[in-house]
Amino acid sequence: MPYDHTAPGAEHYLPVLEEIAAEVAAKPGRGRSADYIPALACVDPDRFGMAVADLDGGVCGVGEWRTPFSTQSITKVFALALVLAHEGTGLWEHVGREPSGNPFNSLVQLEYEHGIPRNPFINAGALVVTDRLQTLTGDASADLLAFLQAESGNPELGFDLEVAASEAAHGDRNAALAHFIASYGHIRQPIPPLLDHYFRQCSIEMNCADLALAIGFLARHGVRADGSRLLSRSEAKQVNAVMMTCGTYDAAGDFAYRVGLPGKSGVGGGIVAVVPGRCTVCVWSPGLDERGNSVAGVAALDRFTTLTGLSVF
Amino acid sequence: MPYDHTAPGAEHYLPVLEEIAAEVAAKPGRGRSADYIPALACVDPDRFGMAVADLDGGVCGVGEWRTPFSTQSITKVFALALVLAHEGTGLWEHVGREPSGNPFNSLVQLEYEHGIPRNPFINAGALVVTDRLQTLTGDASADLLAFLQAESGNPELGFDLEVAASEAAHGDRNAALAHFIASYGHIRQPIPPLLDHYFRQCSIEMNCADLALAIGFLARHGVRADGSRLLSRSEAKQVNAVMMTCGTYDAAGDFAYRVGLPGKSGVGGGIVAVVPGRCTVCVWSPGLDERGNSVAGVAALDRFTTLTGLSVF
Amino acid sequence: MPYDHTAPGAEHYLPVLEEIAAEVAAKPGRGRSADYIPALACVDPDRFGMAVADLDGGVCGVGEWRTPFSTQSITKVFALALVLAHEGTGLWEHVGREPSGNPFNSLVQLEYEHGIPRNPFINAGALVVTDRLQTLTGDASADLLAFLQAESGNPELGFDLEVAASEAAHGDRNAALAHFIASYGHIRQPIPPLLDHYFRQCSIEMNCADLALAIGFLARHGVRADGSRLLSRSEAKQVNAVMMTCGTYDAAGDFAYRVGLPGKSGVGGGIVAVVPGRCTVCVWSPGLDERGNSVAGVAALDRFTTLTGLSVF
Amino acid sequence: MPYDHTAPGAEHYLPVLEEIAAEVAAKPGRGRSADYIPALACVDPDRFGMAVADLDGGVCGVGEWRTPFSTQSITKVFALALVLAHEGTGLWEHVGREPSGNPFNSLVQLEYEHGIPRNPFINAGALVVTDRLQTLTGDASADLLAFLQAESGNPELGFDLEVAASEAAHGDRNAALAHFIASYGHIRQPIPPLLDHYFRQCSIEMNCADLALAIGFLARHGVRADGSRLLSRSEAKQVNAVMMTCGTYDAAGDFAYRVGLPGKSGVGGGIVAVVPGRCTVCVWSPGLDERGNSVAGVAALDRFTTLTGLSVF
Repeated sequence: MPYDHTAPGAEHYLPVLEEIAAEVAAKPGRGRSADYIPALACVDPDRFGMAVADLDGGVCGVGEWRTPFSTQSITKVFALALVLAHEGTGLWEHVGREPSGNPFNSLVQLEYEHGIPRNPFINAGALVVTDRLQTLTGDASADLLAFLQAESGNPELGFDLEVAASEAAHGDRNAALAHFIASYGHIRQPIPPLLDHYFRQCSIEMNCADLALAIGFLARHGVRADGSRLLSRSEAKQVNAVMMTCGTYDAAGDFAYRVGLPGKSGVGGGIVAVVPGRCTVCVWSPGLDERGNSVAGVAALDRFTTLTGLSVF
Repeated sequence: MPYDHTAPGAEHYLPVLEEIAAEVAAKPGRGRSADYIPALACVDPDRFGMAVADLDGGVCGVGEWRTPFSTQSITKVFALALVLAHEGTGLWEHVGREPSGNPFNSLVQLEYEHGIPRNPFINAGALVVTDRLQTLTGDASADLLAFLQAESGNPELGFDLEVAASEAAHGDRNAALAHFIASYGHIRQPIPPLLDHYFRQCSIEMNCADLALAIGFLARHGVRADGSRLLSRSEAKQVNAVMMTCGTYDAAGDFAYRVGLPGKSGVGGGIVAVVPGRCTVCVWSPGLDERGNSVAGVAALDRFTTLTGLSVF
Repeated sequence: MPYDHTAPGAEHYLPVLEEIAAEVAAKPGRGRSADYIPALACVDPDRFGMAVADLDGGVCGVGEWRTPFSTQSITKVFALALVLAHEGTGLWEHVGREPSGNPFNSLVQLEYEHGIPRNPFINAGALVVTDRLQTLTGDASADLLAFLQAESGNPELGFDLEVAASEAAHGDRNAALAHFIASYGHIRQPIPPLLDHYFRQCSIEMNCADLALAIGFLARHGVRADGSRLLSRSEAKQVNAVMMTCGTYDAAGDFAYRVGLPGKSGVGGGIVAVVPGRCTVCVWSPGLDERGNSVAGVAALDRFTTLTGLSVF
Repeated sequence: MPYDHTAPGAEHYLPVLEEIAAEVAAKPGRGRSADYIPALACVDPDRFGMAVADLDGGVCGVGEWRTPFSTQSITKVFALALVLAHEGTGLWEHVGREPSGNPFNSLVQLEYEHGIPRNPFINAGALVVTDRLQTLTGDASADLLAFLQAESGNPELGFDLEVAASEAAHGDRNAALAHFIASYGHIRQPIPPLLDHYFRQCSIEMNCADLALAIGFLARHGVRADGSRLLSRSEAKQVNAVMMTCGTYDAAGDFAYRVGLPGKSGVGGGIVAVVPGRCTVCVWSPGLDERGNSVAGVAALDRFTTLTGLSVF
């Protein structure tokens, strides 16, 4: 049964969301919007929205929780889940699952580790995941978009081709990563179309409600919105674990320390987080810290787990 | 009220522990004992023990769960907790809390990051923690030992001075780390006695029951065995988070992926793990993988969370 | 006045060349041919030729000194000289002149140093040089070939398009380097045609006599074979200096220590060396050491400077 | 026959030295004195002296060519020569002879290369050389001082114990290097006294005339001032080659490019350079560039080789 964004059931989270929104509003001016993509750079860094979804598709939110934003790296967790659903553990021959201890687009570690990216959430690893998804489905970005539409219940989700083109125009670094990994045999698709899929994937626009709903399968231990199973319970645990240790660039330790939930961030300013067996959260605020995570977003999630006691620890 | 190792209350875990012990026994010969300390190298890598403690001090176990072994790096989590209890967040000016992405005794990252160790569980960071503890208490290793005796309820715990001397005799690498950090001002105590405290701390002998009980304060959200509070709920969450992202050397991602619990390992072959609000586990088997974690220990914890569903994810 | 390979004037070097050839012949089986290009891998590693040219175009040789081989990285020194002749010191804004301390195709240092390659003789730096030459001349590889034809007096020199295609087919690593440098703005030409020029440049076939003659302008302090000036005396000194400190991959220190001459090697097994104001030498033997230099080639040059006393030191 | 600093024979270099001194005086304010040793930090960075010595012990100079200054790393070349004289090539099992491509006191490369320092002139390598000299002579710093007194003909040379103490007080970084190398077995002497010898060695005070005379054995292809042989011709060539590729920290490529002579610098602001078979030069000016070489010193040597044409290239 499809559900819509106004489905009831999560309203009991509203008071805490409103308290957080008030706190965030009282401290503007934190962080800077991502500056390497013109289409992202012009977004006001102080915008803010936050939504919580329960396990049954109920969702509520505060601020600009219905405003679409660029999901960017948040899509990496969905791509990972789809590849695991298709081929199980075969993926791990081509990408690791350890935190990197380095900036998200570093080539250094990749060289020392023979072209096997540290994890699926650094750019290098996400390129490997997209390469696998392309091999498995023949149209990686379309397959991902269809999954997000289904899980969010929002058939209007789409690519922002202007953002994708903007990233492609500044894509030398990702091209370097892809060629480098290919030189070790861990990417097999032709690189120019692979990069197209990758940039389209990152350009998908969603709002906080869409994302909180879409990530629900990880709170439901692998079960999709329609009740079918995408991942085994063990696989869902594994994806949550990879988010916990690798989901917020080179700040995963700090995110775990402050928030205590599996989460995945993007340079568009969004962050999704999962409370296994309970609910999911998505927050958006474009102002980023120097490691690429939303300043107000991390602060809001920190407050959320403190106020609700919902940390996994 | 002090409790002893035979306190009832955790017996319902016995069947699963016995199942795991049988599985482990069926697959001997995995891993090698740590070879850089003669006193550890001669231990049979196939020995095995495992214990679970509940929140009230009940404990049960299988195999050699009452056999003392060298705790080594496991003590780093207790030292961290004591420093946080003493001075709160001041510690974080001198050590980070991000996974390292490098071997446990690497100097490379330390140089790139201006002498601030990545986290308190790599050797470099643990030296900073011991330096702080020494400054705060005047006798870091004695203070730590007293804490472990109190929490485990075992007053006979002590240093293995032969192991400590053996480590000191091969201590050039740790001396290099300490001098290097001191050159950036993040270690302040004189280095030779600091190293003595560090090596003594690592040499403490405990068994699985001792350790499962001693780590109980992290499952009780900061409350000690005697009911007094060591850490705030938030601080306990933070220590668990640091264990999750940094507790098993350069295999924290894999440990989270497979086990899904905060844990801390040592090259003596022990691992402790925490199920917040539920129980603690300690497993010991000296055969190590190439990253320094007990092969049978990780496998046993992997089976434990699979069989009990007790992962935090 | 054009000269040919049989011009007299260098015959007094023949006895020492013959002594060296005899020594080399007595010790076969050293080194392995480059294995990453099929067209190079099938060459017998024990083949050997050596030639000396004097300042006036006289040349003599031993062994297979008239057998063409793949010049590979040796062409980098000619490309450097042409760019310096065209634009003087402007090049040094985009490439350094320090030895790298790393393998020839490493990306690590490039990342730490913001996309400015360490020197013009590692692959990354040579790509920058080719990018400049392409910008300055509009046809980098044709311009280079014409120069080599003129200086060697051999109008039949040409590209080996099979070798160029073979390198292009395994060119992901060089593509990664080029995209990476471009991401920092130090390469400006479109990358696919730039790589074509680069691979063609490396594929030029020459023999020992051709190369000894062609490098003569560096022994003549910048003066070409026809008496015109390519480089100022100071610029010629500079190119020799870059060869001395960076000309033999990550073995420049050892080459200076043993041979004591500015030199440039290629993975085809060739090495050219310059005795400023006196003569030039080229040696060829395809068996390489682990750092990519000809084993018999370095040994032959070591003996040459020992027997003649012609080291610059 | 001992010689003194006023021995005639080098006066024909005076006009060029005076021209250089005038040029340097016209451009004050370049560079900063070394700031990590208080005793060096207070020296006026614009002081300047320069001396040339011929092969027979004649010496002339300009500016403060008779003012003693702290030789620092310049002594590393003499220590290397003494160890080679004692034990030949055995040293090279414990230290390499490749340029490092890294700052002079880096631990990074040392870790990747298993504790074997890249060359004898970075601090790590010099510690290995001092360790060998201490093993071979029993009193490394006294042996070195005696050699410098003999070659310079100046019996009053001595250690500056205040400078040595100052370095020891800030010696954590060098202690880290020494312990780190010892952990790989490439340093064998006890580390505290080894560091004392190292710091005393660096503290020796000499003036430009002393140093130009003392380094004469490298211009005389291995022959000492008294006509006895310290090194074979081949060994002298090798030491010159190591100076050329590694003698000026991470600027050896630039020094070769600009000056074109084997040279060795120190953070006291001195640089010695060798014109094999012709003469030696020493220049002193305390203002350093960001890589630790004297700004006016490199400029003066650049002008010297340009004006005299004495570059080895």
